[in-house]
Amino acid sequence: MARIARQDDGENEEGNFSGTLPARNSMGALMDPERRIVETLSSVATATVTTILLKKGLRNVWMRGTRPLRTGQQRRVGRAFTLRFVPAREDLATPESWSSPRSTRAAIESMPEGCIAVVDAMGVADAGIFGDILCARMKQRGAAVLVTDGLLRDVAGVLGTDLPVWCSGVAAPPSVAGLTFVGWQEPIGCGGVAVFPDDIVVADDDGAVVIPAKLVEEVVATAPDQERMEAWIMEEVDKGVPLPGLYPMNAETKARYEAARKKG
Amino acid sequence: MARIARQDDGENEEGNFSGTLPARNSMGALMDPERRIVETLSSVATATVTTILLKKGLRNVWMRGTRPLRTGQQRRVGRAFTLRFVPAREDLATPESWSSPRSTRAAIESMPEGCIAVVDAMGVADAGIFGDILCARMKQRGAAVLVTDGLLRDVAGVLGTDLPVWCSGVAAPPSVAGLTFVGWQEPIGCGGVAVFPDDIVVADDDGAVVIPAKLVEEVVATAPDQERMEAWIMEEVDKGVPLPGLYPMNAETKARYEAARKKG
Amino acid sequence: MARIARQDDGENEEGNFSGTLPARNSMGALMDPERRIVETLSSVATATVTTILLKKGLRNVWMRGTRPLRTGQQRRVGRAFTLRFVPAREDLATPESWSSPRSTRAAIESMPEGCIAVVDAMGVADAGIFGDILCARMKQRGAAVLVTDGLLRDVAGVLGTDLPVWCSGVAAPPSVAGLTFVGWQEPIGCGGVAVFPDDIVVADDDGAVVIPAKLVEEVVATAPDQERMEAWIMEEVDKGVPLPGLYPMNAETKARYEAARKKG
Amino acid sequence: MARIARQDDGENEEGNFSGTLPARNSMGALMDPERRIVETLSSVATATVTTILLKKGLRNVWMRGTRPLRTGQQRRVGRAFTLRFVPAREDLATPESWSSPRSTRAAIESMPEGCIAVVDAMGVADAGIFGDILCARMKQRGAAVLVTDGLLRDVAGVLGTDLPVWCSGVAAPPSVAGLTFVGWQEPIGCGGVAVFPDDIVVADDDGAVVIPAKLVEEVVATAPDQERMEAWIMEEVDKGVPLPGLYPMNAETKARYEAARKKG
Amino acid sequence: MARIARQDDGENEEGNFSGTLPARNSMGALMDPERRIVETLSSVATATVTTILLKKGLRNVWMRGTRPLRTGQQRRVGRAFTLRFVPAREDLATPESWSSPRSTRAAIESMPEGCIAVVDAMGVADAGIFGDILCARMKQRGAAVLVTDGLLRDVAGVLGTDLPVWCSGVAAPPSVAGLTFVGWQEPIGCGGVAVFPDDIVVADDDGAVVIPAKLVEEVVATAPDQERMEAWIMEEVDKGVPLPGLYPMNAETKARYEAARKKG
Amino acid sequence: MARIARQDDGENEEGNFSGTLPARNSMGALMDPERRIVETLSSVATATVTTILLKKGLRNVWMRGTRPLRTGQQRRVGRAFTLRFVPAREDLATPESWSSPRSTRAAIESMPEGCIAVVDAMGVADAGIFGDILCARMKQRGAAVLVTDGLLRDVAGVLGTDLPVWCSGVAAPPSVAGLTFVGWQEPIGCGGVAVFPDDIVVADDDGAVVIPAKLVEEVVATAPDQERMEAWIMEEVDKGVPLPGLYPMNAETKARYEAARKKG
Repeated sequence: MARIARQDDGENEEGNFSGTLPARNSMGALMDPERRIVETLSSVATATVTTILLKKGLRNVWMRGTRPLRTGQQRRVGRAFTLRFVPAREDLATPESWSSPRSTRAAIESMPEGCIAVVDAMGVADAGIFGDILCARMKQRGAAVLVTDGLLRDVAGVLGTDLPVWCSGVAAPPSVAGLTFVGWQEPIGCGGVAVFPDDIVVADDDGAVVIPAKLVEEVVATAPDQERMEAWIMEEVDKGVPLPGLYPMNAETKARYEAARKKG
Repeated sequence: MARIARQDDGENEEGNFSGTLPARNSMGALMDPERRIVETLSSVATATVTTILLKKGLRNVWMRGTRPLRTGQQRRVGRAFTLRFVPAREDLATPESWSSPRSTRAAIESMPEGCIAVVDAMGVADAGIFGDILCARMKQRGAAVLVTDGLLRDVAGVLGTDLPVWCSGVAAPPSVAGLTFVGWQEPIGCGGVAVFPDDIVVADDDGAVVIPAKLVEEVVATAPDQERMEAWIMEEVDKGVPLPGLYPMNAETKARYEAARKKG
Repeated sequence: MARIARQDDGENEEGNFSGTLPARNSMGALMDPERRIVETLSSVATATVTTILLKKGLRNVWMRGTRPLRTGQQRRVGRAFTLRFVPAREDLATPESWSSPRSTRAAIESMPEGCIAVVDAMGVADAGIFGDILCARMKQRGAAVLVTDGLLRDVAGVLGTDLPVWCSGVAAPPSVAGLTFVGWQEPIGCGGVAVFPDDIVVADDDGAVVIPAKLVEEVVATAPDQERMEAWIMEEVDKGVPLPGLYPMNAETKARYEAARKKG
Repeated sequence: MARIARQDDGENEEGNFSGTLPARNSMGALMDPERRIVETLSSVATATVTTILLKKGLRNVWMRGTRPLRTGQQRRVGRAFTLRFVPAREDLATPESWSSPRSTRAAIESMPEGCIAVVDAMGVADAGIFGDILCARMKQRGAAVLVTDGLLRDVAGVLGTDLPVWCSGVAAPPSVAGLTFVGWQEPIGCGGVAVFPDDIVVADDDGAVVIPAKLVEEVVATAPDQERMEAWIMEEVDKGVPLPGLYPMNAETKARYEAARKKG
Repeated sequence: MARIARQDDGENEEGNFSGTLPARNSMGALMDPERRIVETLSSVATATVTTILLKKGLRNVWMRGTRPLRTGQQRRVGRAFTLRFVPAREDLATPESWSSPRSTRAAIESMPEGCIAVVDAMGVADAGIFGDILCARMKQRGAAVLVTDGLLRDVAGVLGTDLPVWCSGVAAPPSVAGLTFVGWQEPIGCGGVAVFPDDIVVADDDGAVVIPAKLVEEVVATAPDQERMEAWIMEEVDKGVPLPGLYPMNAETKARYEAARKKG
Repeated sequence: MARIARQDDGENEEGNFSGTLPARNSMGALMDPERRIVETLSSVATATVTTILLKKGLRNVWMRGTRPLRTGQQRRVGRAFTLRFVPAREDLATPESWSSPRSTRAAIESMPEGCIAVVDAMGVADAGIFGDILCARMKQRGAAVLVTDGLLRDVAGVLGTDLPVWCSGVAAPPSVAGLTFVGWQEPIGCGGVAVFPDDIVVADDDGAVVIPAKLVEEVVATAPDQERMEAWIMEEVDKGVPLPGLYPMNAETKARYEAARKKG
């Protein structure tokens, strides 16, 4: 079972960053709320998520440059675990820095099971943030996914680890050729989108989107209906029904849909 | 049989946009001229088309960012049916706007069979212009192809419709997250190239190119010879003939080629 | 056997461009030094090469925009044979220029067996530098690989020649639509990296990197150890060892590694 | 007196583009509503306009790349008269095209007094859209201002005409080197912003912003209060009052402000 | 007297960010070391600083896009006080957020006298980070300078405050149109350069550069000599001495310079 | 008197680069042809030059990013003396390289009086190609102008040398932070334009343009008439004549212009 951990560290307490989530772990007859979120959203396309969020006024939730590394990766859902880089400075961005207590290595060791690591590489396009060894360790610790607006390196090795990755390409140079790592579980920008620890990330063929923690319940409540409705519209298109009045539905079409839905 | 409709609306009459084409529909013993254009150009590479147009002084006919969505899509030819977006403004670019009489839906219902829809998305890289439902309807109406300098969304669904698409990538957000639709069958820019209604579009592995309506006959007359000649040159290269004098041909090579051509 | 030729033309003599290399062609009981370079580096990832060069202070050796044209191309190693374009000027960049003595055709006829042609296309993104005919001739002359920060054209034909290509995409227009060819075996920039004739190029799934001629011996001496060490670290990760102290290794891990290496 | 004409051509009737405006020309004891709009907004900074529109949900109204050509140009207000270019195609974008009935010349002769010409140059950065002769004619016809995301040419001459210009720079080449003119009074994109005929444009040191026609009255009603309030806050800052609680105002500060306003 | 405060908050303690500086405040016969740093570097061009740092291996210390807002601003030196934005999310980046305890307002109230505020706006080019009111307050609190890779708004008002600003331009929209403020005195990227709290910033006509805290003493020790030497070289050029051997100096020129320096 | 030297080195002989120019130095009763070129073109705007060249099929002659460093610099004309950089490689791009025989210093010592140095900096935007010392030496050697698509450094000092400069901005870091110098008097790209030694460069408020050496005579023969005609059109505009039929001229206007010209 995929478990999605929640970050409760100090950073979330002192600001307005962290969402309030319904109680969890009520394991018994009821389903764990986290599990319900993950299971429900696993059948909702990122395209549908963005339409729902746009109706709530959020137009900027899709992380530019987050493409599946391997074609046909299945949809993934999880809580964001954020990592942050700043540009490289030659005295700091060195192979030696990899041993620092504030290194990418330490960040990986802090990742909870089931999380989606979201890495702010500032879109730097000439250094790979992680290679095969770091991805292998993430996989072993149970991190669900790696999402970044940057690049991976040693791509053959990374593919070998079976960690699902969404990124904007590959490059041979190590991260320190272009980036200095500065910390984790802070607010970040990734692909032009603000991401906070505990936000929900959904990633599929269309890329990765963020659902702000506070809005997750609403999206979970709305999304399956939306998917069902679009499936019905698709059937109508297949029957040759023209688009105006069908998509979006006018009153008459809505009535037809409701009738069809009741019939089942 | 693929039929290519011609646009005769008012916009083409009042300006200098529309090309003059030889009479059509002379169905009988003779082949339909439109059909001849499509059939002839279907065996001409876009690379060859651009070389022929460059010799006539046209260097800028390849639409940047138009890549086949699916690898191995076969070459397609058709008349351009243009659609135009401007940037999103939050009061106009809304899900409600999808019901407007000037919507993408209405444009699709106006597409003639066999046309190539060319969509000016101003290269906007963070919203998908169309998803699976719109592509399914285009396919059903007989539109041959979708070409855009923008992105598609709901890519898994789009691939399922079997509509051939040339675009610059995929994104989850709906068009209204970044774009406002304003009309169809107007002159547009697509991938840095001017496209007018009635221009011929050819799309293959190298992307999509425009042949101005006025120049179509000339290209159709020249292209097959060019293809034949390049095939012969390739054979010579395979025999080990060096490039200087062979490609481009000097007088002696030309003579050899003519002789070979006569032989058959 | 792949032979890597060395450029000894005048351009390298009059400046500080050319590296000094150990004697070659000592064919006998000993292995040819060029052959040893190629064979050794053929089993070293470009990611590893960049890490080794970064430790020597070189952060900028990976050519941006050099992606394998065909997925799964095996790693290639060779000496750089450089070609240089400047922007197109309509009076010079014409199909007629292809017959000039300073043409791409003449450059190809000068390529030594086993070389890697590195083409400075200034990242121009709307013209293909070479098509199928030129690639076929390169293949026949024994050029090992084509690397460019530009685009190829006639991609179906190019794939048919089996010449391995690293480039940043494809476009239909001929080179003269955007570029003027000016010469070969000069220092160039390719993907933001300085490349000099005689530098060693390594290309794999992560793109293409340059090893300055003067540093080749050092890299060849260091790289296999680095690869071996990383393979051992990967095994440790698979056993569940956490990253801090393992990668990079602290003193204790180093001792363990040395012990393991001695055992075998 | 600056008169602002309203466009009532067919394009505005057949879609949802045109705003509805209160009756005009009630010349008598009352002030002309158009004149009131222009006079009121002439004392409102574009920065203030964008804040007011953002509170109504419009984040994207500032045209990127619209900088005053001459430092210290005073603020200007007027109705948008739009012009549209697409990319250059060598057979259309010629000096001969300047005589076409669909030329920039014809567009200029259609400009009403007091309008602000807003030109969509698609941000093309290597051709000047207008030179001194066209600007001189615009000035003579009473056009108030020229705004574009493109460049001007013959900048010394343009400065000599005294037409106020907001643009993104200067270039020597004529428009046809990079652009094909296609029409006027259509919806356009300018600097990444949708602009429709009849929208109000305000331009000052911070660049040019669009107020959608439908929202003009609301902005006119709100803006002077906002300016007054910010002036009072500035006075408070000058007295040494810290920002929290002052800007934005908390309840106590609001009371102080209301008291001051009544007094004074 | 300009005093440069040092940040001693928790963030600097727990990582490797903070430089170690010589004891300060030894007010008496001796000059305050901070004051010495500021006074010495105030006569050293940023061009000279970058040359000195490059000799120590640091090539990336100049913040791209940091141009003086007013021509002729004199050189400024101070300790960096960092602010950080991430991209706008519509639910967070609102005018209401300006009252949050984690707002730009709170950051300004924490700025020590003499500091240089360095703002990471991720190069966002369509929103102004600060307007006249915030700049006025900074000026009053004694902040020396504002440096950002972003834009200012309300530029006429900002110029009126006399706060020296280095930025990449101006825009009308408020920060919340494109940015979400997340904190201060963290490591940031500004114009592609890593900046840490306590680093020294020098800004002049060529833009703003960072001197890592740990290297300040070395730069202060070296820079005046470098400036003196370059002034002497300039005198030699004025006398007509050719560059080779003069700049950089060969042994003979060095001897001449030493002789001149002793005399002079 | 400004003398414009011609480059007769080997590079021009072996290819198709060099233009053929009429005999020069016929000092006596006749005016030196070079002097006539410079004097004639000194009164022709770059905007006019680009229009004339476009009529000959050359659309791409304006060097992007070449802006006057000082406002109000007068127009300059001269033969191109080219310099070429490739990207920086840390082992080559060092302060030590400044002493190499293939350094920028040596290039400057080769510059003929009256030339226009055109520097290909590949548009690199984070290093200044030259500072005050190099500009001072160029000035002293009689170089007329410096044109580059890159940046200058030490801008206060450069302005002090009075060397007229066209560039795309300023930066503090030295050239070696981003660039490796490789040679002079080779074909180059500058601002997206091909420039060959011996081409004529004209620079004014609109930037710098290249006239290919072979076309200089034609431009010199045509340009003054074009300027005269445009001046007459401007007078007509000032009289209130509408643009259609005036600019470009129709037959009637041409007759009026001819009559006016004869009158004088």
